[in-house]
Amino acid sequence: MKLPVRVDENELAARLERFGIETPSWGYADTGTRFGKFLQDAAATTIDEKLADAATVHEYTGCCPSVAVHVLWDFVPGEDPPAVARKAAALGVRLGAINPNVFQDQCYKFGSVAHRDPEIRRRAVGHLLESIDIGQAVGSGLLSLWFADGTNYPGQASIRQRKRWFQDALRQVHEAMPDGMAMLVEYKPFEPAFYHTDIADWGMACAFARHAGPRAKVLVDTGHHLPGCNIEHIVAFLIDEGLLGGFHFNDRKYADDDLTMGSIDPYQLFRIFHEITAAEQEAGRDLDIAYMVDQSHNLKPKIEAMIQTVLTAQEHFAKALLVDHGLLATARQRDDVVLAEQVLRDAFATDVRPWLAEYRKARNLAPDPLAAYRDSGHTQRLAAERKGRKKDEGASYA
Amino acid sequence: MKLPVRVDENELAARLERFGIETPSWGYADTGTRFGKFLQDAAATTIDEKLADAATVHEYTGCCPSVAVHVLWDFVPGEDPPAVARKAAALGVRLGAINPNVFQDQCYKFGSVAHRDPEIRRRAVGHLLESIDIGQAVGSGLLSLWFADGTNYPGQASIRQRKRWFQDALRQVHEAMPDGMAMLVEYKPFEPAFYHTDIADWGMACAFARHAGPRAKVLVDTGHHLPGCNIEHIVAFLIDEGLLGGFHFNDRKYADDDLTMGSIDPYQLFRIFHEITAAEQEAGRDLDIAYMVDQSHNLKPKIEAMIQTVLTAQEHFAKALLVDHGLLATARQRDDVVLAEQVLRDAFATDVRPWLAEYRKARNLAPDPLAAYRDSGHTQRLAAERKGRKKDEGASYA
Amino acid sequence: MKLPVRVDENELAARLERFGIETPSWGYADTGTRFGKFLQDAAATTIDEKLADAATVHEYTGCCPSVAVHVLWDFVPGEDPPAVARKAAALGVRLGAINPNVFQDQCYKFGSVAHRDPEIRRRAVGHLLESIDIGQAVGSGLLSLWFADGTNYPGQASIRQRKRWFQDALRQVHEAMPDGMAMLVEYKPFEPAFYHTDIADWGMACAFARHAGPRAKVLVDTGHHLPGCNIEHIVAFLIDEGLLGGFHFNDRKYADDDLTMGSIDPYQLFRIFHEITAAEQEAGRDLDIAYMVDQSHNLKPKIEAMIQTVLTAQEHFAKALLVDHGLLATARQRDDVVLAEQVLRDAFATDVRPWLAEYRKARNLAPDPLAAYRDSGHTQRLAAERKGRKKDEGASYA
Amino acid sequence: MKLPVRVDENELAARLERFGIETPSWGYADTGTRFGKFLQDAAATTIDEKLADAATVHEYTGCCPSVAVHVLWDFVPGEDPPAVARKAAALGVRLGAINPNVFQDQCYKFGSVAHRDPEIRRRAVGHLLESIDIGQAVGSGLLSLWFADGTNYPGQASIRQRKRWFQDALRQVHEAMPDGMAMLVEYKPFEPAFYHTDIADWGMACAFARHAGPRAKVLVDTGHHLPGCNIEHIVAFLIDEGLLGGFHFNDRKYADDDLTMGSIDPYQLFRIFHEITAAEQEAGRDLDIAYMVDQSHNLKPKIEAMIQTVLTAQEHFAKALLVDHGLLATARQRDDVVLAEQVLRDAFATDVRPWLAEYRKARNLAPDPLAAYRDSGHTQRLAAERKGRKKDEGASYA
Repeated sequence: MKLPVRVDENELAARLERFGIETPSWGYADTGTRFGKFLQDAAATTIDEKLADAATVHEYTGCCPSVAVHVLWDFVPGEDPPAVARKAAALGVRLGAINPNVFQDQCYKFGSVAHRDPEIRRRAVGHLLESIDIGQAVGSGLLSLWFADGTNYPGQASIRQRKRWFQDALRQVHEAMPDGMAMLVEYKPFEPAFYHTDIADWGMACAFARHAGPRAKVLVDTGHHLPGCNIEHIVAFLIDEGLLGGFHFNDRKYADDDLTMGSIDPYQLFRIFHEITAAEQEAGRDLDIAYMVDQSHNLKPKIEAMIQTVLTAQEHFAKALLVDHGLLATARQRDDVVLAEQVLRDAFATDVRPWLAEYRKARNLAPDPLAAYRDSGHTQRLAAERKGRKKDEGASYA
Repeated sequence: MKLPVRVDENELAARLERFGIETPSWGYADTGTRFGKFLQDAAATTIDEKLADAATVHEYTGCCPSVAVHVLWDFVPGEDPPAVARKAAALGVRLGAINPNVFQDQCYKFGSVAHRDPEIRRRAVGHLLESIDIGQAVGSGLLSLWFADGTNYPGQASIRQRKRWFQDALRQVHEAMPDGMAMLVEYKPFEPAFYHTDIADWGMACAFARHAGPRAKVLVDTGHHLPGCNIEHIVAFLIDEGLLGGFHFNDRKYADDDLTMGSIDPYQLFRIFHEITAAEQEAGRDLDIAYMVDQSHNLKPKIEAMIQTVLTAQEHFAKALLVDHGLLATARQRDDVVLAEQVLRDAFATDVRPWLAEYRKARNLAPDPLAAYRDSGHTQRLAAERKGRKKDEGASYA
Repeated sequence: MKLPVRVDENELAARLERFGIETPSWGYADTGTRFGKFLQDAAATTIDEKLADAATVHEYTGCCPSVAVHVLWDFVPGEDPPAVARKAAALGVRLGAINPNVFQDQCYKFGSVAHRDPEIRRRAVGHLLESIDIGQAVGSGLLSLWFADGTNYPGQASIRQRKRWFQDALRQVHEAMPDGMAMLVEYKPFEPAFYHTDIADWGMACAFARHAGPRAKVLVDTGHHLPGCNIEHIVAFLIDEGLLGGFHFNDRKYADDDLTMGSIDPYQLFRIFHEITAAEQEAGRDLDIAYMVDQSHNLKPKIEAMIQTVLTAQEHFAKALLVDHGLLATARQRDDVVLAEQVLRDAFATDVRPWLAEYRKARNLAPDPLAAYRDSGHTQRLAAERKGRKKDEGASYA
Repeated sequence: MKLPVRVDENELAARLERFGIETPSWGYADTGTRFGKFLQDAAATTIDEKLADAATVHEYTGCCPSVAVHVLWDFVPGEDPPAVARKAAALGVRLGAINPNVFQDQCYKFGSVAHRDPEIRRRAVGHLLESIDIGQAVGSGLLSLWFADGTNYPGQASIRQRKRWFQDALRQVHEAMPDGMAMLVEYKPFEPAFYHTDIADWGMACAFARHAGPRAKVLVDTGHHLPGCNIEHIVAFLIDEGLLGGFHFNDRKYADDDLTMGSIDPYQLFRIFHEITAAEQEAGRDLDIAYMVDQSHNLKPKIEAMIQTVLTAQEHFAKALLVDHGLLATARQRDDVVLAEQVLRDAFATDVRPWLAEYRKARNLAPDPLAAYRDSGHTQRLAAERKGRKKDEGASYA
């Protein structure tokens, strides 16, 4: 296949080697909408199954060495967290970001660390502190925080009071983190809160991160923005402020649709990666960013969807690495808008799939991991094995 | 209290008398988001409880004589539908719109009447036909159709093929309806489908209604529009086309948030009502529109939230009836934008609550139904009675 | 270059031959925003210059044989329209859609065919009728109607009354059209009207087209939709209803940004073309659709931007022609969401630029028309020639 | 008229006394859209006329003592700025915020302080420094900065490089400001830039303000947000961060529509004011916030529209002052969502117009300033006087 002549294929391959994508344990389980879940026989229900599935994705793609875990769903109280880490290791993956859960319990109906009841706030902070312990126990360096906190109706609570409770809680959690651990603060404009969400946008996440301490950074979930938002602009801005901590990747058309990465707007994904690779090119080193998937593919088979996502990420990261930075700089220096845009479009239009097939073959991977996985019959085997044990009924809206 | 002098208070009262609001059975049950449900002790679980709660709302407000029912959740297969109607009658309410459910079953994962499998399409149409039978059996004149049908990913299905399946199904259902029954076709831009929804907007609902037959009309759910959409424009347009069948009322800030009516944008609600009352004033008669509530107040207590909603509807309908149509016409005739707008603003700014208190007293209702209900201790009694029977666990996201 | 083996390259080339793109005369003139215009020395000011520029674009791309004209800006009152047509012919292009202007005159401040003053309505309709005459005189078969009509404030006018005036006007215009002429009805949600726009969405355009008569169709301007709108769904729906008349192509990120085609969301453009080519594949014939550009590239040089746009259109139409309809049907028949999506993605990911270069060479065109044009120095020559004659000052916001 | 018993009417009146609203000089001139301007005979063209009109608004409303001025449009180069201040004083008003203009000149086509050409950046900063001088010369304490800087196409410029240029420029300007002057940094998501705007949201404005220095604050223009954005949340957050500097008030339905204040969503306006009055109630003092109008009422007569806006502001600020903070706190303490919301709704539903009429009478103002102004025939007199001098032609789109 032909890549633009000026691209150093060894450098390209080397950078891709260092481009690891973390998949989430909950991405292998059944999820749905408020109208119910459509269940899959092959979906995972236990942490063992989730880790096995994550390992399968890594086996086929070669670039998903870690698995984000969810404290409430993946660690049985009383059980030994290192045991989970050992299971992962045995499967060839390791545990990545620790995701606490302070939104599912009935006690969190009106908030967690911003609940008006100090008892609930203590309980929520307690869970966050336990999550740090789990993280240390399993050797994870990332505490990834998403809060559903917010209100549904005007007047329901004091926005400023809740802000201060958030600041207190995050400062407390930051203090408790060991040196090697970083905190990622995620933002989201709405859902499940429908009037105001306490951490609604990147500006608020930034403010909370700054109040918390130097190892707090911002987590960008690509689906958590209002319509029209220029996400790559936020990414570039955060890079320059030294506050970009990581991503939750997925795609969307309307709200937080949690579709698989790049399925709706692949050019946006390319542009986000371009902001990163351009900054890396200037800095002469990789940026320290956690690339994580967080999507809810409730119609697509779980492992297939995850492989598809990972390949999409690789493809678009590779395209971003094709951008001719020299020509781009020249075009910009001349205010040559057409040429500058064309440099990006040329990289995006380049079909990198044949090159990636070669790249994979050289690493003893299937040239087309999705086709290889589909041909393997693995999903069918999982379905047969796991089918009987399902007890979730898909729930009912009302 | 002072209403504008030119308003005929008797006419106002008479029109309000004819302004009935239907509440939905499922509005008394626990609902939630994909992240789970927050359960309420006092929420209804059986059809008996739902009818009782609807009757309570009617008892306090005096304007909610009917209850929309949901076939899957309210009618036990094999049970006698007229028995449900008799229970309602005994409680002082009647059954209203019949709402089929062709979205919850696992078989509807890829669609119902637009599923590619003819067997599923037949099953879905079968359920719609049964719903007509139930409607006839309980004396309902309205078949209210909402379809979750759609796709999540580009390419997933043929949009045009599915359109034709929809046309066929709705024509078939229309043919099966008895003379006195009308079909309402609801539209929604997204959720639970996230790439394309088969009936995505009012234009599509219109097209399907026209293809189905003369007794098919469009149902406007106020929360089912893209950001910025001018809903009152659609309402006015549908009135003029003779295709406005009814409403599902709720409010929203972001997506289909299903907040209680008027909680976010009360002026929009007023403007919607103004389009209706203005058309009625011109026509010299009431328009035949079904006013129904469909909201998901998962933080507010169910009955309280419903009473609050109903009072909001009454208040804003009354405000719309205060609009000075003569002065409005004069202002428009002069292109006097400021005056024309001021006519609407004056009506909206008028505090109709004191007058409504008098209006209610004259009808042996509490002047402030919400306060009266809250003082009654009814929710607390229901909570004590119903608490033990809950089995729903609130579900889990993953 | 490699195209997928199953593609018949002759058929592909033949279909591209029949894929003509009309460029607009006003796309060669200076345009701007309400904050002013940034002027270009090379921009066209007279109809002669605009036609010359359109001919240049056709010369380089080989697929832009016609030019949309704007009655107010391109035809001097009293002048002979056929003279303009002859000038075009002499340059190797022909006149395409006729675009009346009933929005610029001060008399249209409160509307044109929906103005409350019958005198203004008559004047507006009169201009539309004259536009038909011009169309006949110059041999155009398309009357392309965009109305700025609407209101800025609630209450300003009767929405339903204006709707009826619109119906009357369009019916009158339809009646006056000769047999071979079609009317395209464009819709737009907002701007310049900011509260309600009389033809706000495709559903309204459809209703007006049906009221007008059988030769009225809907014009889809890709930038005229609310955030999140699924445009390809509308396109598919209109095709099935027999009401898709044509396109105004441009791209957008926020509102009606009028950026060059495919610059923000190229995958959406591909999906729109896919709906068309899929319908053509089923029908076994080309659909009768007018493909027109309407964008406002106020930073990019005019001719360059237009060539870039045209190449983008060709590229994405070619990609759409690569879709494997057989495999897509198989995937859909199996509810194989991943495979069905993959069929679309594979076509989109294919780099068609090398094949298009060959295609062009075979037609005596430059393999890369944009590079060839940029190398030609033509813009610089135009700038030198046209510079002196500018009198527009770019205007001021206030 | 009846206000809730617990409201101290003297306090209410006293707070309203201190609620001054600044009107903008350019709000009295003809403005429009990119499709042209609709001209008004009575619109102002010179600074003398604008000041006279602002004085008229203050004369009728009693609460608009200052006028925001625009350096490019209001100060003729070479003229003596204090002379303008003296004219204002003679008319009974004073000059308020100084608004530089680094967006209209042709040289700013690709940016101002973020232009890649250091010469343009210097020129832009130079204009900002001159604006400080003008501010000092006329006794203004506010430098209000809005930048149109941004890009229209992906790749056009380095987002991070431009960010750093912005930081440099604002730091330089901050350093040049005298002690008593504050800098307001305005943000806007898009228009006139359509791909990325350098200061796109409040988070970016915050970051730039922090980089600039302690007297830099954020300016919230109510029309400058993406769809669905919770503006009152941002306001509350900025108050808590000590960074809320002021407002540009207007209303919108779609994009930056610049409609008159409260014309589309009056409840949102009330909620914004509630966040302010609640914070003031807690702090026991007024917050230091500049309340300024910035709207473009191109259909409404200028002075009428401004009076209407000012009355709307007063009405909704008064409503916000009616909120029962004690009851609100109680409701929140009990997680009583319905009651908490009801406290806000009750204040909003209260008709404060009769009380405001009394309030005005006690201050020798007309009880209904809009009616009084309309009855005065002033617009007609201005139209007669100013009509002849118009030379603006309304411009043309292309």
